[in-house]
Amino acid sequence: MEIIKGHIADIRDFGKLKFLIVRQDGNLIQIVLKKEVVDDELLEKVKDLTKESVVEISGEKVESPKAPNGFEIIPKSIEIISKSDPILPIDLSGKIESNLDTILDTRPVSLRLPKYQKIFRVVSDTVYYLQEYLRKNNFTQIFTPCILTLGAEGGSEVFNVFYYGKEAYLRQDPQLHRQLAIQGGFSRVFEIGPNWRAEESHTTRHMSEYRGIAVEMGFIKNEYDVMEFEEKLIRYVIEKLSEKYEIPEILLPSGKFPVLEFPEIYEILEREFGKVIEFGEDLDREAEKMLAQYVREKYKSDFFFVNRFAFQIKPFYVMRCDEDSFWARSTDLLFKGLEISSGGQREHRYEKIIEKFGWTVYFRAYGCRQIII
Amino acid sequence: MEIIKGHIADIRDFGKLKFLIVRQDGNLIQIVLKKEVVDDELLEKVKDLTKESVVEISGEKVESPKAPNGFEIIPKSIEIISKSDPILPIDLSGKIESNLDTILDTRPVSLRLPKYQKIFRVVSDTVYYLQEYLRKNNFTQIFTPCILTLGAEGGSEVFNVFYYGKEAYLRQDPQLHRQLAIQGGFSRVFEIGPNWRAEESHTTRHMSEYRGIAVEMGFIKNEYDVMEFEEKLIRYVIEKLSEKYEIPEILLPSGKFPVLEFPEIYEILEREFGKVIEFGEDLDREAEKMLAQYVREKYKSDFFFVNRFAFQIKPFYVMRCDEDSFWARSTDLLFKGLEISSGGQREHRYEKIIEKFGWTVYFRAYGCRQIII
Repeated sequence: MEIIKGHIADIRDFGKLKFLIVRQDGNLIQIVLKKEVVDDELLEKVKDLTKESVVEISGEKVESPKAPNGFEIIPKSIEIISKSDPILPIDLSGKIESNLDTILDTRPVSLRLPKYQKIFRVVSDTVYYLQEYLRKNNFTQIFTPCILTLGAEGGSEVFNVFYYGKEAYLRQDPQLHRQLAIQGGFSRVFEIGPNWRAEESHTTRHMSEYRGIAVEMGFIKNEYDVMEFEEKLIRYVIEKLSEKYEIPEILLPSGKFPVLEFPEIYEILEREFGKVIEFGEDLDREAEKMLAQYVREKYKSDFFFVNRFAFQIKPFYVMRCDEDSFWARSTDLLFKGLEISSGGQREHRYEKIIEKFGWTVYFRAYGCRQIII
Repeated sequence: MEIIKGHIADIRDFGKLKFLIVRQDGNLIQIVLKKEVVDDELLEKVKDLTKESVVEISGEKVESPKAPNGFEIIPKSIEIISKSDPILPIDLSGKIESNLDTILDTRPVSLRLPKYQKIFRVVSDTVYYLQEYLRKNNFTQIFTPCILTLGAEGGSEVFNVFYYGKEAYLRQDPQLHRQLAIQGGFSRVFEIGPNWRAEESHTTRHMSEYRGIAVEMGFIKNEYDVMEFEEKLIRYVIEKLSEKYEIPEILLPSGKFPVLEFPEIYEILEREFGKVIEFGEDLDREAEKMLAQYVREKYKSDFFFVNRFAFQIKPFYVMRCDEDSFWARSTDLLFKGLEISSGGQREHRYEKIIEKFGWTVYFRAYGCRQIII
């Protein structure tokens, strides 16, 4: 006996033959009510059934090549747990594409569409596989405070919280506490949790609240250790997801993810695309897309690292490539032209940090936003 | 060749024989430097080494029954990554017990003590095992907003956030969105994340920010389904933790966790302890402790459920035991006398919710904090 619990996605009535399509956890299941096969009482019960009503049905599972997923249910009992209003706020047949406002305004209903269900399930699995791989590699998951009393860098883009009469902030990133955990003797930690950015921008690259996975590794030799680990982590998650889902095509190189480094990146952009970025300056959105195209064609990869940004555009705690180098051990990972992570190597030498910190404070005090030593 | 990375926990110098004790991820590892066995250069290198310095040592692992964990390392190379100040802000030998203020003020250092390391590792594992069991049981992990525009029940105990010029709140619990996810066609979801309570109380039962695991199950028959699942989840986690850690003694009954129900609970308290609680009122802290003692003695269990609280002290969305019943399908789980979870069955019948909600609004508007119908 099979038990099906879900919403009525569709009702097809042919008089003596009725089909109910039940949506259970994003899957469609066909229930067949044929007169003289099922109890008359059941046919009576579903007479006025409305779409999106909540039901619990038990019955016999039989093969049926035409039904969704190749089987159907001959019901023995039907319980109508909650009967839906016949007028629905949004089309759930998948035939009419609603606009984004309607989809979001009716989220508790629109979410029932299998395509949205899948997004949530993939996120859930992705988070689990990330944790699985990190745990296999001796990382400890930590949970650090979200309300901080000190603003992070770029203090203007934080949300203010009133904390028992004092001013406090929602974290932009759990970076400081992650570093303190390494100081505290955990050589490898990660945190999965919310971060906030009070950026008044409505683009796909800005989110007021987002979840991030923040990884901190002690005892690295240089930033390439981090890149190597990150690549392995991503490959692991993609592999695990591929076992379960039909995922969209991703170009994964057979060798390592390509690494583009400054200052060569400036040359590539100018040579290949005629794009000029001032020496020592950051990439803009257009440059990122150009590099993505370049890497896709040359290396057949949707992933690539950008390494060795100019030190002047990076925070004071980043390590320079060498003493007095213009370049920093600062790395972004891009996927299909979008930055999906930042990393690198931090300065761990006490004297160097104090020295850089001093200059930072100095330039901050004089209104200079960038750290120039 | 073994590689050890960590902090110097102790240095024992006997002239031609030196022991370094390295603390690596909460474990103590002994390094032996004996003149004429190791390079003179290594002995020279560690001459001025200070406790809590950060080192990376590679060497040969040899059995040694007297050493911590039964082995020691004969070093081939020693790298002093960071030399510590000889004056430490807190004793890390474990011989002197520091007071809580000192422990917290020096957290990045005090955290290195194996006893604190263990707490964090147990938390990390607990979260993972919870997820593991929930996933095995078809739960989807969701991540819902922390900043809400509507205050939850008891609106005075929220933290205010300024959200682009509008007033908003940090969630007290992800309850509403969890329920919406069930509406959205996920029959089983959970969330692990932060919650906030702006309660100005300094007790071990109050925390401004805490992590919770919020589980929502659709299609239950009654609150006993929830209790049964919760018990299985907890037993799973304890079993998994026991495989890895020596955990403190927990009384686990061989049968199911005991369930105490109202109004019998009032009788037990009066009969066994002479404690009188007004009929229909909540348990106080003393009563919880008394019940814990009663259950421990009678059922040999540190866990027990308290079920069927009076409806009048519970939120409007809780389901009554039967129509017009005085009691609600509302359940707490207590562990060693402390409430560790709340649960039960929610009212899912539209008309009943609207009816109750109407009364709630009415009584709120007239300044009555409790919902009395």
